[in-house]
Amino acid sequence: MKVERVAIVGLGLLGGSIGLAVRAFAPHVVTTGYDRNPEVREAARERGLADTICDDPATAVADADLVILCVPVGAMEDAASQIADHLRADAIVSDVGSSKQSVAEALARALPDHAIIPAHPVAGTERSGPQAGFAHLFAGRWCILTPPSGASSDAVEAVGSFWEAIGAKVEIMDAQHHDLVLAVTSHIPHLIAYTIVGTASDLEDVTRSEVIKYSAGGFRDFTRIAASDPVMWRDVFLNNRPAVLEMLGRFTEDLTAMQRAIRSGDGDALHDLFTRTRAIRRAVIEQGQDDDRPDFGRGPGA
Amino acid sequence: MKVERVAIVGLGLLGGSIGLAVRAFAPHVVTTGYDRNPEVREAARERGLADTICDDPATAVADADLVILCVPVGAMEDAASQIADHLRADAIVSDVGSSKQSVAEALARALPDHAIIPAHPVAGTERSGPQAGFAHLFAGRWCILTPPSGASSDAVEAVGSFWEAIGAKVEIMDAQHHDLVLAVTSHIPHLIAYTIVGTASDLEDVTRSEVIKYSAGGFRDFTRIAASDPVMWRDVFLNNRPAVLEMLGRFTEDLTAMQRAIRSGDGDALHDLFTRTRAIRRAVIEQGQDDDRPDFGRGPGA
Repeated sequence: MKVERVAIVGLGLLGGSIGLAVRAFAPHVVTTGYDRNPEVREAARERGLADTICDDPATAVADADLVILCVPVGAMEDAASQIADHLRADAIVSDVGSSKQSVAEALARALPDHAIIPAHPVAGTERSGPQAGFAHLFAGRWCILTPPSGASSDAVEAVGSFWEAIGAKVEIMDAQHHDLVLAVTSHIPHLIAYTIVGTASDLEDVTRSEVIKYSAGGFRDFTRIAASDPVMWRDVFLNNRPAVLEMLGRFTEDLTAMQRAIRSGDGDALHDLFTRTRAIRRAVIEQGQDDDRPDFGRGPGA
Repeated sequence: MKVERVAIVGLGLLGGSIGLAVRAFAPHVVTTGYDRNPEVREAARERGLADTICDDPATAVADADLVILCVPVGAMEDAASQIADHLRADAIVSDVGSSKQSVAEALARALPDHAIIPAHPVAGTERSGPQAGFAHLFAGRWCILTPPSGASSDAVEAVGSFWEAIGAKVEIMDAQHHDLVLAVTSHIPHLIAYTIVGTASDLEDVTRSEVIKYSAGGFRDFTRIAASDPVMWRDVFLNNRPAVLEMLGRFTEDLTAMQRAIRSGDGDALHDLFTRTRAIRRAVIEQGQDDDRPDFGRGPGA
């Protein structure tokens, strides 16, 4: 089984990047694209996010052997329902959602007769919309497949090979475990960033202007994450509740311990934590998951 | 009053960057440097972090009209005591510490007869040590002066002009207010980053290898901050306790509200916060305090 015709439903950062990556790295694959927003379709045509941008989902998916749903996880079931009657019988349906258990259930409900291989490319930026995508978004990043039990190994192989062709490294994981892992490596970091930016902007004794002027002390990094797409992230938290609440509980326990260490002047506890976190950073860089340049290479000299 | 001879005590990221910035942008100023660690002094000589690297603090400060203490805030009083008997009577003493009330008190105790103008350049990277500094670290960043009441306006002007000469923008602020502002724009973000990286590395049901592989989902940004100098940050938290605990309390209240919204499925509350945080990001970029490129310009295309 080989992917030769890909339909992309939803042409924002992820969908657009898939289309551009196919053109750059797998030009033998033909792409069609659809977005429910006519302005997005128009922008997608101008940028060439897919070979053909269709005005209805039925046309977009009609010939596809792989359909990738690139919509917020809360919109997956609707998007899947709209294409259900128009898919080829042997089409594989996949997605790029950040939570996998709820998406697997939604797609199974909407498409009981099709092969469903959910996927999550762990890649993105704070930008969203049809102007945000770029061809190398997935280069060197991991794409996690969470095939349901009994999924065709040929279908898993086909989806995995597609992601490798556009630059990603592929891992297969149980959906429940995926949701736990991503809660800590992605969902909680986003929740924390959104929250501290909200806290800072609500203060009365520190002005918003001061918060912005002195943001280079660390805060500015959180503002980047907190500029991510609100609908996408609302849906992630609503659709990965148990894992997010579990990981959030552990984080707040640890934060309370640090609070106690500060209050009691326990410098050793602080120094111990601050020392052992460095090893994680080194590993992230050694494994090619972040830029080795100080401060991500930002600044006038960059 | 014009600064012509600067002594830098402590030759890590900040001290080294001051020396290099003087050479690049204010070459008429003569610099001397001292660090209590002989290996750091040797590295400083090799990199030319100051015109003269001295083997004792007395020699380094003997001719200086401005002495800048660039040591962790917990080491300020010791460093000041060592130079007290060797300063010129008209020398101004300043520093680069991240908390200002405790430093002001420590310097006043150690140097009762000298003009003390505490300063905090809001700039840095996750690197530390004599190899970490670079000349443009302060370009476009704010340097906050917190002169004590009754400070000589000539001394304030001299220190401010020095920082402007090496690229910074200068603001004058009350020390207590500084500590509150920086608690939210710098200290709490660091504490949160250290904590979540610690939480992630302690999990039993998610492996450290998984945390690292899938860190591009947001977590990797926190690992950069959590790689900052442990001694420096231990001292910040021990020396800015009331403001840090106050801001931490507000953050955890807001985080608890988000937790409740997730648990109860209140998508509107989540969407509302996630939308209004974007305005802060835009302002940070408009005011030149961060890189406008998506994802800080990281990635294969950067």
